[in-house]
Amino acid sequence: GPSEASNQCELPEFVGAGIGDTVGLVIANLDASLREKINLDPKYRSIGIVSSRTGGAPHVMSADTAVKATNTIIASVEFARDTKGGAGHGSTIIFASEDVSDSRRAVEVMLDELDENFGNVYGCDAGHIELHYTARASFALEKAWGAPIGKAFGITVGAPPAVGMLMADVALKTANVDIVTYASPSSGTCYSSEIIITFTGDAGAVKQAVLQAREAGLSVLRGMGQNPLSTTSPAW
Amino acid sequence: GPSEASNQCELPEFVGAGIGDTVGLVIANLDASLREKINLDPKYRSIGIVSSRTGGAPHVMSADTAVKATNTIIASVEFARDTKGGAGHGSTIIFASEDVSDSRRAVEVMLDELDENFGNVYGCDAGHIELHYTARASFALEKAWGAPIGKAFGITVGAPPAVGMLMADVALKTANVDIVTYASPSSGTCYSSEIIITFTGDAGAVKQAVLQAREAGLSVLRGMGQNPLSTTSPAW
Amino acid sequence: GPSEASNQCELPEFVGAGIGDTVGLVIANLDASLREKINLDPKYRSIGIVSSRTGGAPHVMSADTAVKATNTIIASVEFARDTKGGAGHGSTIIFASEDVSDSRRAVEVMLDELDENFGNVYGCDAGHIELHYTARASFALEKAWGAPIGKAFGITVGAPPAVGMLMADVALKTANVDIVTYASPSSGTCYSSEIIITFTGDAGAVKQAVLQAREAGLSVLRGMGQNPLSTTSPAW
Repeated sequence: GPSEASNQCELPEFVGAGIGDTVGLVIANLDASLREKINLDPKYRSIGIVSSRTGGAPHVMSADTAVKATNTIIASVEFARDTKGGAGHGSTIIFASEDVSDSRRAVEVMLDELDENFGNVYGCDAGHIELHYTARASFALEKAWGAPIGKAFGITVGAPPAVGMLMADVALKTANVDIVTYASPSSGTCYSSEIIITFTGDAGAVKQAVLQAREAGLSVLRGMGQNPLSTTSPAW
Repeated sequence: GPSEASNQCELPEFVGAGIGDTVGLVIANLDASLREKINLDPKYRSIGIVSSRTGGAPHVMSADTAVKATNTIIASVEFARDTKGGAGHGSTIIFASEDVSDSRRAVEVMLDELDENFGNVYGCDAGHIELHYTARASFALEKAWGAPIGKAFGITVGAPPAVGMLMADVALKTANVDIVTYASPSSGTCYSSEIIITFTGDAGAVKQAVLQAREAGLSVLRGMGQNPLSTTSPAW
Repeated sequence: GPSEASNQCELPEFVGAGIGDTVGLVIANLDASLREKINLDPKYRSIGIVSSRTGGAPHVMSADTAVKATNTIIASVEFARDTKGGAGHGSTIIFASEDVSDSRRAVEVMLDELDENFGNVYGCDAGHIELHYTARASFALEKAWGAPIGKAFGITVGAPPAVGMLMADVALKTANVDIVTYASPSSGTCYSSEIIITFTGDAGAVKQAVLQAREAGLSVLRGMGQNPLSTTSPAW
C-alpha cells in the first residue's frame, strides 16, 4: 500500500503552496522526454512549475513579477477550465533556467505575489470580476496574452460573460487604450463562462480604464442580487 | 478602493436577471473594436447580451421567441462549460439592432421566457435531462444548431451521456423525424457530460419523439437511484 | 406531464450503475443515423455504452478488462471535463457487437471492475492522483492512449498539474520505461487541471514507475496540507 500521511512534504522539489490551491515545485534536471514534450530547449535543465485550481490572471501577473526578478524564462502558460465549480480558469506556469536556484527563486517570488494579485478578484456565487494592471508588462504577460514588453497593460474579466462584455465596453470607452485580445466562452478561453479583454496604452489611461470597468462590473453583479467581495484585499 | 455595495444596479445597461444566474444587458452603441471582435456589421450599433452560468437550450429556446417578437438579429450564440459543477453548459446570446430599444425588448422577452423553458429541464445529483420542442424554429435555433427556419424542431439532452444516447435512440425510433445534429463530450459540446441531438419533421412527430425520450431519460436516472425533478414546472 | 417516480428502471436497456455516477446501458439495434454519427460499421447492430461523471482512467482500465473477456470491439472512448467540480474527467465508452448479449456482458464486466480500479485514485479537496498498471494492454487502452497491445502499460495522473509533472518525472527516472503520451490542461485533456502520462516497458519497470510516482504525488498533496485517500481501497 501507499505511504502513511504526514503533514509535510520532505521532497526537495517542494517549494510551497498558496491561495487557489496553488502549488509550486522545482525539478532540477527535468527528464529529457518530458523536456521534449513541453518543447523546452535542452540548455534549460531546470524548471519551476506553479499550478492552481483557481486563478488564471492573478497567477500570470505574479509570474510576470517573478520573471522580471530572476534569471529565468517563461517556458509555458496554460489554462485549465477549473475554479472548482466556479466560472473561470486554473493555470499552470512553467519557468525554466540553466541553474535550479533561479527556477526556485522564481517560484518563491511568484507565490509571494499571489495574495496581492487576488485582491483584484471580486467573487460571489453568481460569478466574479477581475481587474489587473501593470505599468510595465514582461514575459509572462507576453506569453499569455501577447502583451507588448515594457508597456502598460490592463486586463478585465467578468463572469457571467455579459458582465465582462460591459466591463470591456466601459474600459475601452473610458480612456485611450488599444485592445490586444478579446476572449469569450467559445474563443480564447477554455470554455470558461467569462469575457476577458486585455489592452495597452499610456499608464494613466490603462489604470483609469480598469478602475471604471471595476465599477461597472461590481454594479451589475450587485444588480443580480450578489455581494461581490475581494478574495483578499484590494491594493487600489 | 471599489464602490460600496448597494442592492440595485443603476446602470442604464442593466435590463434584468433570471434563473440559472442569468443576466441581461444592453449596450446602446457598442465600442467599435468590440464590434469587430464579434464580427458584427457596423450598421448594428446596439446589442442585447444575455449570459447564464446554467442553461444552454432553455436560453436558445427563449431567444428564439425573442427574435421572432422583435426587430433584432441573433449576432452570436456561445456555450460555456459551466452549470457550476453540473454536467452541462452555460450560454451567452447576443442580439443586435440598429435601435437600442429593439435590443432591450429582445432581452426583456427572452428573460420572460426562461422560467417556462426551464420546466423542461429535469435535474438530479447524477445528471439531468432536457426536452425542447417548438412548432416553428427561428433564427436563434438556426444559429445554435442549424434548425430549418419555420419548421418544427426538437432537442433531447441527457447527462451522463449514456442517458442522452438512449434518449436519442428512442426519439429517432418513435416517430418519423430527421436528425439535424449529434453532439457528445468530444464533439459539438464544450466537453460537457452530455449527448444532445436535434431533429426536425412534422410537428406531431417531433412532439411525440421528445415525449418518449423524456420517459426513457427519467427512467434511467431513476434506475441510478435518482429523483429527477423539473427545475420549474413542466408545461407538458 | 412526465411519469411519476419509481425506484427502478424497467427498461431492458438498463444494465446497472456504479461509482462515479456511472451508468451502463445496452441498445440492441442502434438507430442507423446514430450509428453513422458515431462512425460505427453497420455490421455491429448492438452497443453497450457506459458513462461516468467522475472517472476517466479507471473506466478505461475497466473497459480494457471487459473487452478482453467478451466478443466486442471498443467503438469509442470519449472524455468530458467533469468530476462535478473536481479537477478531472468523466468518460463515455462504447462497446459494439453483432449480438446484444456480448455488449451486455461487456458492460457488466466493466461495471464489476470499477471499484477495484478506483482504489488507485487518491482524492482530496485540492486535487487527486491516480496510478494505473496492467501487465497486458488491450483495445480500450489502445483506443484511449495508443497503448501497444499485449504490452505492460502504466498511467500516472496528478492534479493540480504540477503534481502530475513531478509524478511523470519520477516515473520516467525510476525505471526503464518509454513515454507513450503526455497530456496537460491545454493539450490532450478536456482542459482538465491535470498532467497525465502513459508509458510502456517491461512489466516490472512499469510497476516500479507507478509505485514511485504514487509516493511523490501523495507527498506533494500532503505538503499542500491535504490528506489524499483512496476512493475505495488500493489493491497494491
